[in-house]
Amino acid sequence: MAQYKIAVDVMGSDKGPEMMIRGVGAALNAHAELSVCLFGDENIIKRECQANGLPTDRVEIVGTTEIITNFDSPSTALFQKTDSSLVRALAAAAQRDDIVGVINAGSTGALIAGSMRYLSTPDRVRPALAAVLPAENGGFTCLVDTGATIDCGASTLVHFAHLGTSFMKDLYKIDTPRVALLSNGAEPTKGNKAVKEAHAMLAQETDINFVGNVEGTNALSGACDVLVCDGFAGNQVLKVTEGIAKRIITDIVKYAKQTGKEEYMQLVGYLASKYDLASLGGGIILGIRKPVIKAHGAANEKSISSVIEMMLNLAANIDVFNGKH
Amino acid sequence: MAQYKIAVDVMGSDKGPEMMIRGVGAALNAHAELSVCLFGDENIIKRECQANGLPTDRVEIVGTTEIITNFDSPSTALFQKTDSSLVRALAAAAQRDDIVGVINAGSTGALIAGSMRYLSTPDRVRPALAAVLPAENGGFTCLVDTGATIDCGASTLVHFAHLGTSFMKDLYKIDTPRVALLSNGAEPTKGNKAVKEAHAMLAQETDINFVGNVEGTNALSGACDVLVCDGFAGNQVLKVTEGIAKRIITDIVKYAKQTGKEEYMQLVGYLASKYDLASLGGGIILGIRKPVIKAHGAANEKSISSVIEMMLNLAANIDVFNGKH
Repeated sequence: MAQYKIAVDVMGSDKGPEMMIRGVGAALNAHAELSVCLFGDENIIKRECQANGLPTDRVEIVGTTEIITNFDSPSTALFQKTDSSLVRALAAAAQRDDIVGVINAGSTGALIAGSMRYLSTPDRVRPALAAVLPAENGGFTCLVDTGATIDCGASTLVHFAHLGTSFMKDLYKIDTPRVALLSNGAEPTKGNKAVKEAHAMLAQETDINFVGNVEGTNALSGACDVLVCDGFAGNQVLKVTEGIAKRIITDIVKYAKQTGKEEYMQLVGYLASKYDLASLGGGIILGIRKPVIKAHGAANEKSISSVIEMMLNLAANIDVFNGKH
Repeated sequence: MAQYKIAVDVMGSDKGPEMMIRGVGAALNAHAELSVCLFGDENIIKRECQANGLPTDRVEIVGTTEIITNFDSPSTALFQKTDSSLVRALAAAAQRDDIVGVINAGSTGALIAGSMRYLSTPDRVRPALAAVLPAENGGFTCLVDTGATIDCGASTLVHFAHLGTSFMKDLYKIDTPRVALLSNGAEPTKGNKAVKEAHAMLAQETDINFVGNVEGTNALSGACDVLVCDGFAGNQVLKVTEGIAKRIITDIVKYAKQTGKEEYMQLVGYLASKYDLASLGGGIILGIRKPVIKAHGAANEKSISSVIEMMLNLAANIDVFNGKH
């Protein structure tokens, strides 16, 4: 019955292991095919599993004694904190065939570095942290990279185009995903050095449906299924979107108070849920052997549960991993 | 009385010379100290000046026969279209002491290239296209660069920090403007190669009030007065902000229709004016001898008028130009 076992690092998130375990519980209730292996403080895990009534037959617990935080240097933490929940979860995924993937809501840097160390493909390509975001036209856009590889040459961008294409084919069942390059203008002559070179290269790639450059204004309009950029620019797209959405929602709350119009608060609820990137699932590390998902540090029960659902979906459509790309 | 003469290229904007001339007319009405020199199709300018009742004693007309559009290659257009309104306006600013600056709402690329050609400082530093944007805390943030210099090394970023500091000192009368670097994380170790190097250099600059890195989430929160980045990243901040603001406003319109709540349309009006970057004034080219302002291509009468007001303000506080930085 429980055919997919997911490793979950319950430590390191902003809201603590209690919230992680509540999210896991919600996912277990909704999906009979799911089982989990929880990595973290054994006492806390046992207590919270009992308090939230998690089914013991689908929960494996691996007690660990260390935590990698955002204050640790990712590269050194991996070597020094060998009994951390993160290192143990990644190592288990590398060693055990029954574990289909890893979820974590802690240090992004350590998760990426650890994924490279434990789950890299034989050709050791640069990994990408992709985000699947709701587009204005109702579809989804896979933004790749959002922060795993900050400095990219043209060939890395082309590689990201392939990773994103495979991902949207496998996961979203889009036959020929439209791939665009994020740039500072729509014309092929626009872009930084790497983007201009990648533009010329992508135009020649026969297995990429390249539709040209897309500007920031249309990054999430639905003009493409895969938006390719270096990790620095992708991080800006993601975080500027988040910052401006929060700001406008705050504006509406202020406006509601100033004008005394309580009914505007309904709209605030509607927009807050629509633009709450924390609940939109997590970043997916592409270019490694098994799926690894980074949930938002501030993830709540609902978003942790939805990240686990995304992992189940990945496990059932795993072509994009296994070094095939 | 009319002590400041501004050169205005009335051609090349999305909404045509008629809109530009209406904006000029509004500014002339509001500011007795202003006179203008209009560059463009002589017949259209004469007709529209008469139709809108512009004061003839404060309007000089220079008839030109060519227009540089967004479809022209900026560098070749400058050499081929020597009787274009843009080239003539920039050349006049370079030659005539009575012209304090140039305004245009056409091709950004041609304007930047032309500014370099006609108005560069003796040391021929890289120019920056700065944008002054309203911050969440009620202040203003000078984003520099937004698209003039796409590939930047660390020393160019440090140079932009100086340009932005001078600008916010002179124009906004901030004694020690807080300067931040846009990055993918707040820690000094975050950033692409140029950002990390610039971080170390700015920390050593005694005449820069460097406050560290700022992430996209806080780009326009008011955490700094000057936000430094390369033209590629700055273009993303500007355009992603614009795109998401428009998208959320469209969402509210849809929500109003779906729920039948007409009163939400008041809010739409409020937000649309607050986040209409087209009316927020234009980009200012820094690092040249005289102020050149790029108005938004879709600028309306109000925004053209406000761009002219910004130029008057610049003309009265001109330390940032004249090769002093």
